[in-house]
Amino acid sequence: MRLHARVARVRAEDKRLELDSGEQLPFDHLVFATGAVPRSLKVPGEDLPGIFHLRNLTDALRIKNFLAEGKCKRALLVGAGFVSLEMCEAFRRLGLSTTLVHRGELPMGRLDEEFGKKILAELGKNEVKFIPKATVENFESKSGGGILVETSNGPLETELVLLGVGVLPEVSLAAEAGISLGPTGAIAVDDHMRTNLDFIYSAGDCCESYHRISGKPVHYPLGDIANKQGRVAGANIGGQNLIFPGIVGSNCFKVFDLEVASTGLTEREAKEAGFDATSVTIRGVSKPHGYPGAQKLWLGMVADKDSGRLLGAQGVGGDGVVSRINILAAVLTAGLSIQELAYLDLAYAPPFSGSWDPIHIAAQQLLK
Amino acid sequence: MRLHARVARVRAEDKRLELDSGEQLPFDHLVFATGAVPRSLKVPGEDLPGIFHLRNLTDALRIKNFLAEGKCKRALLVGAGFVSLEMCEAFRRLGLSTTLVHRGELPMGRLDEEFGKKILAELGKNEVKFIPKATVENFESKSGGGILVETSNGPLETELVLLGVGVLPEVSLAAEAGISLGPTGAIAVDDHMRTNLDFIYSAGDCCESYHRISGKPVHYPLGDIANKQGRVAGANIGGQNLIFPGIVGSNCFKVFDLEVASTGLTEREAKEAGFDATSVTIRGVSKPHGYPGAQKLWLGMVADKDSGRLLGAQGVGGDGVVSRINILAAVLTAGLSIQELAYLDLAYAPPFSGSWDPIHIAAQQLLK
Repeated sequence: MRLHARVARVRAEDKRLELDSGEQLPFDHLVFATGAVPRSLKVPGEDLPGIFHLRNLTDALRIKNFLAEGKCKRALLVGAGFVSLEMCEAFRRLGLSTTLVHRGELPMGRLDEEFGKKILAELGKNEVKFIPKATVENFESKSGGGILVETSNGPLETELVLLGVGVLPEVSLAAEAGISLGPTGAIAVDDHMRTNLDFIYSAGDCCESYHRISGKPVHYPLGDIANKQGRVAGANIGGQNLIFPGIVGSNCFKVFDLEVASTGLTEREAKEAGFDATSVTIRGVSKPHGYPGAQKLWLGMVADKDSGRLLGAQGVGGDGVVSRINILAAVLTAGLSIQELAYLDLAYAPPFSGSWDPIHIAAQQLLK
Repeated sequence: MRLHARVARVRAEDKRLELDSGEQLPFDHLVFATGAVPRSLKVPGEDLPGIFHLRNLTDALRIKNFLAEGKCKRALLVGAGFVSLEMCEAFRRLGLSTTLVHRGELPMGRLDEEFGKKILAELGKNEVKFIPKATVENFESKSGGGILVETSNGPLETELVLLGVGVLPEVSLAAEAGISLGPTGAIAVDDHMRTNLDFIYSAGDCCESYHRISGKPVHYPLGDIANKQGRVAGANIGGQNLIFPGIVGSNCFKVFDLEVASTGLTEREAKEAGFDATSVTIRGVSKPHGYPGAQKLWLGMVADKDSGRLLGAQGVGGDGVVSRINILAAVLTAGLSIQELAYLDLAYAPPFSGSWDPIHIAAQQLLK
């Protein structure tokens, strides 16, 4: 193991790594697991003290140490993806006055509007100020401390800024070494996690995944996918013959008391992928009405009119959302139809669901 | 609608019902939805005051009224299926000294031993006395009040007895009318919920279901199955052409702080059904280790060695058991393999699971 060593370049043709120190390391197989880097806003002042990304443990410790100095009363988040939303909760728990600036109209812009609105309401309930349709133009240190943030919507003041505007795959070394990138800009891999060079593999946030519903390569930098890809790459290098079958696009997060999850394609994505898609959103309950702890939830489903197959689902609610989306992730993987879903034999007992689960209700609705 | 009317007989050949009152009711279609009746112990004194079944709302009100008299300090349950186990919790919450007498060694005898043991431990933790391998031989009223229960294990005294030894399909009218019963003793139906007479349907606890994994008819008197069957029968009578595709045998219940769920076949059932079955049980956690609220869970999976298909699963734990079993119910329905399961794209975030879910871990274990 070489600690604190940086790779200067990969000489694929010689099967060698060259370190910054000049040392050459020969290899039989190589894995690009270079991860992803936070996307930059590309505005002046982005590197000022008090402005953070949250990508790894070091970032988290930096934020924690900054907060421990005790001079921070306000936090400003840029971007409304799940990292920003999760961090809103963390900042509010610490008692910070919290503002979220987002270029779009609703948080989690990928989801349907009605789901974004539920998340927005949850932010409001928890006193997070949401500034929609605003972009950051400049950061400046104030003389008495703190940061002045110029936005398209006027100036804001804060002590801490968290930039959560997504990540980019770290592919520079790979690209220089002649490794092919895919249409997403991440490293292209086959189902064995091999790059275009059969002795060079890639896994994790730097590479693409095959989306089993759209049939297209996607860049979904998520920890569970990275884990699976790494396992498959390692096994294949070790002489096994494992296939990573791809993903269906499942993800979830918690924002305050709300579960948010989705899998597969949204209706818009399904149409872009060429499906004749239809969708429905129902309001259901996590448990039977009147059962202690029963909470409202909203479940949306997208189906292919031609085949009757499920194409995607999204959900939001106080409880039982992730568990439903995971059932639908299995359904998507298997290509089951809405007809099958409408009568799917789920385990039923009042502490866990009604005898007609929200899944059944949404599927029955789609069949009408 | 005829209230308080009893059917004396069904004259299928004339398409008429005959009521006890002598009135004749003609029909075009008939549905047998006669439900199930509690199984009797067939021991003397079973009908004494203070001895109850729990099958319907009237039964529940009877028990509630009896308890409201305030003379009840002890409850004795016979049988260790989910009704008895759920009622243990209810009785303990009311502060009753609670004893469960069971002919088998462990509660929920259908499940693998290690799962029964977890349930037994939960009963113990909640001060339910469990008497295994004991049968009830006689009930007798005591002169000063209360009931003397003679068991194969010696006498017991109590004020209330709940008999929870299963149910039998109520098929007498149907059988007299020439409707065929299946091998389980319940009414045989096709996938349209039709009996052997194509204008007579059946749905609910009085009829069979097709088990999609064993390929055999089963009698699973559960509310969610009854609902689905009723919907299909009704739609078909109304002129639609709906199919009830059958069940995979999913069920769940809560006993104190424990979730218990299963789907598909146990290893024993799989072998009886002719599969070359193998199984694994893992100990996992509902959320990542160290995350607040993370709880231990045990997940068992059964697979077919020949095809690599999942055949069944069972789980027990403080949290997240039902949600996993429901994912596996979808997997079973679709016939996905263990290989697929080992890399299933589930939604991952620390509030809900580890990046390798217990499902992945059990599947990876089965692949070894």
